[in-house]
Amino acid sequence: MTEKIVIALGGNALQSGKDEPTAEAQLQVVKNTSEKIAAICDKGYEIAVVHGNGPQVGRILLASETAKDVTPSMPFDVCGAMSQGYIGYHLQQCIRYALNSRNRNIPVVTVATQMIVEKNDPAFKNPTKPIGPFYSEKDAKELSKAKEYVMKEDSGRGWRRVVASPIPRRIVEISAIKRLWDSTVVISCGGGGIPVVENDDGSLQGVAAVIDKDFAAELLAEEVGADILLILTEVEKVAINFNKPDQQDVSSMNLKEAGEYCRQGQFAPGSMLPKVEAAMKFVRANPDKKAIITSLEKAEEALEGKTGTLFTFS
Amino acid sequence: MTEKIVIALGGNALQSGKDEPTAEAQLQVVKNTSEKIAAICDKGYEIAVVHGNGPQVGRILLASETAKDVTPSMPFDVCGAMSQGYIGYHLQQCIRYALNSRNRNIPVVTVATQMIVEKNDPAFKNPTKPIGPFYSEKDAKELSKAKEYVMKEDSGRGWRRVVASPIPRRIVEISAIKRLWDSTVVISCGGGGIPVVENDDGSLQGVAAVIDKDFAAELLAEEVGADILLILTEVEKVAINFNKPDQQDVSSMNLKEAGEYCRQGQFAPGSMLPKVEAAMKFVRANPDKKAIITSLEKAEEALEGKTGTLFTFS
Repeated sequence: MTEKIVIALGGNALQSGKDEPTAEAQLQVVKNTSEKIAAICDKGYEIAVVHGNGPQVGRILLASETAKDVTPSMPFDVCGAMSQGYIGYHLQQCIRYALNSRNRNIPVVTVATQMIVEKNDPAFKNPTKPIGPFYSEKDAKELSKAKEYVMKEDSGRGWRRVVASPIPRRIVEISAIKRLWDSTVVISCGGGGIPVVENDDGSLQGVAAVIDKDFAAELLAEEVGADILLILTEVEKVAINFNKPDQQDVSSMNLKEAGEYCRQGQFAPGSMLPKVEAAMKFVRANPDKKAIITSLEKAEEALEGKTGTLFTFS
Repeated sequence: MTEKIVIALGGNALQSGKDEPTAEAQLQVVKNTSEKIAAICDKGYEIAVVHGNGPQVGRILLASETAKDVTPSMPFDVCGAMSQGYIGYHLQQCIRYALNSRNRNIPVVTVATQMIVEKNDPAFKNPTKPIGPFYSEKDAKELSKAKEYVMKEDSGRGWRRVVASPIPRRIVEISAIKRLWDSTVVISCGGGGIPVVENDDGSLQGVAAVIDKDFAAELLAEEVGADILLILTEVEKVAINFNKPDQQDVSSMNLKEAGEYCRQGQFAPGSMLPKVEAAMKFVRANPDKKAIITSLEKAEEALEGKTGTLFTFS
């Protein structure tokens, strides 16, 4: 039986922190990432890919706001859709080539994906995710009044717009993704999906929000019946007492152990915590399946059980 | 037997010439367009949608170039990918709602699409399509030297970059589109597809070019075995002696008649001519099928044979 994996790609799989953030430099990083992904396919796994979009959508918004006197600026949901097209294009181009080089003629496509969030998600009451450019206090207050943006002072660097990070509830395009899944490498839910709310008449409406791509990947993994949720990040293993003298890498944790670490505050909110929570959610919903958190470089070894942090139900 | 239609949407189906080109104003136009498309589905046709992206990709490039000192500007192929995400998102959101309102629960998805063009397409020797902002002669000459852009003076309004409009040869993601086609409304080949060339090692590489969306729609219609190629534009029927006192609308033409009109120079290059050529190519390749050119408003009537210009083999 072929095992099915949903791979969640973190920011470092899409761009290098060292280089100028040009599209050309990102394409080089994506080429390397695609080789690793193709190597996983080559082991006989069926895969789907979910990617983040933080830096990319940030730059799209920044360009849009900078040029707003020349051409109308774009709402944030549209910026998200643009980032799905852009990152998806690079990924599908490079994964296709990496697969072809291994004589695997598997189609690769990107599906633009809307993600339904709840209008009354508590996150909308307390937006925390900064997006786009920095503003002076005066400009920030004007924007806040004119466009009903929530603006917050950001660590002495200036004022920024903040948006909510609601929980992803439903993947609008799931039936097409399911239909493609067993024949095709599908790239979907980019940046966590374009956040939309459902109106009373059933119509969807884009909202300015940031969806955690690990939660989106978890939801996708549940929906398509994946065997493994593979969350790729900067580190080979999840650590407790992170950055302290007694830091300790953890090779595996069951739900009870992971829950205890969370209660201890072992994982940074907005960083390792959502990854651990997504991994826990997947094994809670699928007690016979597993989630793995590791680095892109170690992904193959982690799938062989040699490294990474394995999450199991018990 | 259900008839299959590939619909090519022109610029006026995506934005109003009257309004400021904001995303919000475009969304309103797309809502109206989606109602018309859903009405066609409601007649029992299976459809796929191809759309143009001229004004949208132009504004994405303009914003990107305007903001280039703040964040690196994007190559034109990436701008095209961004426009596919953005326009596709709006279309899939609105078509889904319009279908649901008619109790048709058909999935709608956008597939990011690369289109292979030939490196030695003669169009690359003579680029003609202006893109992006206007420059002074001095800036134009510097850009030309620094980035190897071809710059041309544009009707006394300043200098602009021009790119080639090569012929679309192969849809990279065709197998996924075919797999979705009979269950799903697929939006693909947006803006004619992201233009890529194939390197000797089989890798694909984005190029700065503009692909005619009508030729892309024709290629898609051939590949998926569509029964009808429906090209939607501003006018209800194709006219000869256009804008002259003896202007005459044409209700139908066979290949021989259409070829004769083309030789007479009846159709404007870059406007009606590529539409007529795409229609002719489709019926030449499929003598028992038909192509129709008409307006969005008249599309339903044209499918019933009541208006529009019908193209047939003989």
